[in-house]
Amino acid sequence: MSAHPIITLTTDFGLADIYAGVMKGVILSINPACTIVDITHAVEPRDSAAGAFALESACPYFPAGAIHVAVVDPGVGSGRRALVVQTERCLFVGPDNGIFSFALSAPGMKAVYALTASDYFLPEVSATFHGRDVFAPVAAHLSKGVRPERMGRRIDDPVMLPQAVPVMRRAGSLEGCIAHIDRFGNLITTIRRDMLQGFFQQGEIRAEVKGAAITKLMPSYAAAQEGEPFCIMGSSGRLEISVKNSNAAQLLRACRGDSIVLKKM
Amino acid sequence: MSAHPIITLTTDFGLADIYAGVMKGVILSINPACTIVDITHAVEPRDSAAGAFALESACPYFPAGAIHVAVVDPGVGSGRRALVVQTERCLFVGPDNGIFSFALSAPGMKAVYALTASDYFLPEVSATFHGRDVFAPVAAHLSKGVRPERMGRRIDDPVMLPQAVPVMRRAGSLEGCIAHIDRFGNLITTIRRDMLQGFFQQGEIRAEVKGAAITKLMPSYAAAQEGEPFCIMGSSGRLEISVKNSNAAQLLRACRGDSIVLKKM
Amino acid sequence: MSAHPIITLTTDFGLADIYAGVMKGVILSINPACTIVDITHAVEPRDSAAGAFALESACPYFPAGAIHVAVVDPGVGSGRRALVVQTERCLFVGPDNGIFSFALSAPGMKAVYALTASDYFLPEVSATFHGRDVFAPVAAHLSKGVRPERMGRRIDDPVMLPQAVPVMRRAGSLEGCIAHIDRFGNLITTIRRDMLQGFFQQGEIRAEVKGAAITKLMPSYAAAQEGEPFCIMGSSGRLEISVKNSNAAQLLRACRGDSIVLKKM
Repeated sequence: MSAHPIITLTTDFGLADIYAGVMKGVILSINPACTIVDITHAVEPRDSAAGAFALESACPYFPAGAIHVAVVDPGVGSGRRALVVQTERCLFVGPDNGIFSFALSAPGMKAVYALTASDYFLPEVSATFHGRDVFAPVAAHLSKGVRPERMGRRIDDPVMLPQAVPVMRRAGSLEGCIAHIDRFGNLITTIRRDMLQGFFQQGEIRAEVKGAAITKLMPSYAAAQEGEPFCIMGSSGRLEISVKNSNAAQLLRACRGDSIVLKKM
Repeated sequence: MSAHPIITLTTDFGLADIYAGVMKGVILSINPACTIVDITHAVEPRDSAAGAFALESACPYFPAGAIHVAVVDPGVGSGRRALVVQTERCLFVGPDNGIFSFALSAPGMKAVYALTASDYFLPEVSATFHGRDVFAPVAAHLSKGVRPERMGRRIDDPVMLPQAVPVMRRAGSLEGCIAHIDRFGNLITTIRRDMLQGFFQQGEIRAEVKGAAITKLMPSYAAAQEGEPFCIMGSSGRLEISVKNSNAAQLLRACRGDSIVLKKM
Repeated sequence: MSAHPIITLTTDFGLADIYAGVMKGVILSINPACTIVDITHAVEPRDSAAGAFALESACPYFPAGAIHVAVVDPGVGSGRRALVVQTERCLFVGPDNGIFSFALSAPGMKAVYALTASDYFLPEVSATFHGRDVFAPVAAHLSKGVRPERMGRRIDDPVMLPQAVPVMRRAGSLEGCIAHIDRFGNLITTIRRDMLQGFFQQGEIRAEVKGAAITKLMPSYAAAQEGEPFCIMGSSGRLEISVKNSNAAQLLRACRGDSIVLKKM
């Protein structure tokens, strides 16, 4: 049990409704010493893959021991299981719909539990809001030192989402996609730094996105020309497409999920 | 005085402006040990009834002893009084415009005070931002253990909003309205669980909303058919109208305030 | 080192992306005892002047000793310096692009340091997200009592933004501009209370905005007529233009930056 327990929230609730606030009330009712941090509540409704992407990108920057709650949960009230995922570094709490796939398939993975011990839920569990009735109280009890194995039975068949992994095509081209578009219009792709070997030299690259050929790899926004899309190694360790002082998504009319193809030079 | 005092905020300030952050600065200047939780800042400007609905729905999930500040305050700077409402479970701080009606008329109600002791306000009180100058500092002092009776005089005539209570019509029909539409497009009605007796049987119901007849009462989103609006007992203990994996408000062109009529079967 | 260290965040990251949450994770990894407060994340992308306005307006309401981090940073990854600004009351951390001009030119100003000691940064510094890699960890170390002079070298030539100071024209007219439009549509001008001397008498004023002449100075929203724009001394000590129970910006078709001219009466 940490002196400064941290619980993070990643949901599709938005911030206009009371749902995120209510989860915080439930957590603080059980463990008033918690620090609760919003990762994002702006995941598109029911889009677990987008929730997974946000959580995977953010959680390495939180302290070891943090408890990450994710609620993107279209199957709430059905038979879908509720999970605690234990890794070497932290805990995840949420629905069994693949939102934790990235952690389940990573090296530090330790155990997955399907939540069954209703002593750790709110007394009345609704059919529509397990974020409040199951995940928040379970996270709060975990933050007080209750061990995950007391909360349910160990399972070995959690739901896995298909991972959006770039694939190598013949003729030396690598095809990935746009995993996320941020507020600035930067296109964050699924192509990670270690996949780039051989695809560029001396600041030149050949990337195709929405019919446009992007041939510059820039070290910073500042080094780029205004109005001209360029590739840049983004802060999440993924290749990004940006336009200096402008919005690459609007300029290229790009959407999440659109393809990006890198060609060997 | 709690070891872990909690102050919640429910306002119409939005999150783009600095107003909510400034209230937090004022609170922490007086009691740096406070945990401050946002319930919502997205109440429609000046809509106290919507603020009351958010607060009434959220506050049961916060710990006993929590201090709930509500600032939806079109009468700021006029003669309208500022209140502390004391119930058996918690305290409310905000303008005397009916936003606490639900608490004032509930069983646990203890006392209402009109704030007069300016020692507990900021030194200079503006005409336009009592959230910062009056309500935030009063809440912070309450969180340090100052008793409400030291902050003003007891009153017995707080402003009450007309409650949106469903009414029984002849011919066994119950008429309520849509109290809130959430991010997912769920229509949350004023009809509570205990009013439903006799209005449905074996999963069948007859509800009329915007000219559409809804005849299914489903136990969960998962159990429903896609594309077909259905009734469901919502997480707030109120009847809701939803569409599985879609947006009931858009599909039915429903707005907050629209009528819903239940017919006896 | 404070028992209750406070770090505030003012950025152009928005709340949909994970960037603000990630900064909080970094801060709490270094100092889990911190209280982190969002001032705003809704600064227009790359608009340092708007960020400066938000921070200048909000920071007086935070406790002495607070550490204010501002990340509106179009020059990230270029040679632009990273700063700690020390005043008598608090610390500021962010890019050297003028966002702290208001503090740098104020009476309580003590010293400015250009951050060079990479021991206080994250081990790997990206080219695009110094909020995470430089400013958040530096603020967290400051909150643990590390002195700013250990973090870099003192400089005396920080970048200053041109201040939007109202100017007196011949014929006794004072020209300012609209510094901010809030959620309610109130127009917050650059004209401060102490500049108003001689420009109104007995509740009458003559202000020109977007071709409209505004001739009432009201003591409160409540005292005004519906539908008629009026001047009011706003909560930030600046002249504001409002419409009771309505949106002055929409009614006057006013935008941030538009001119306001006061004429002597």
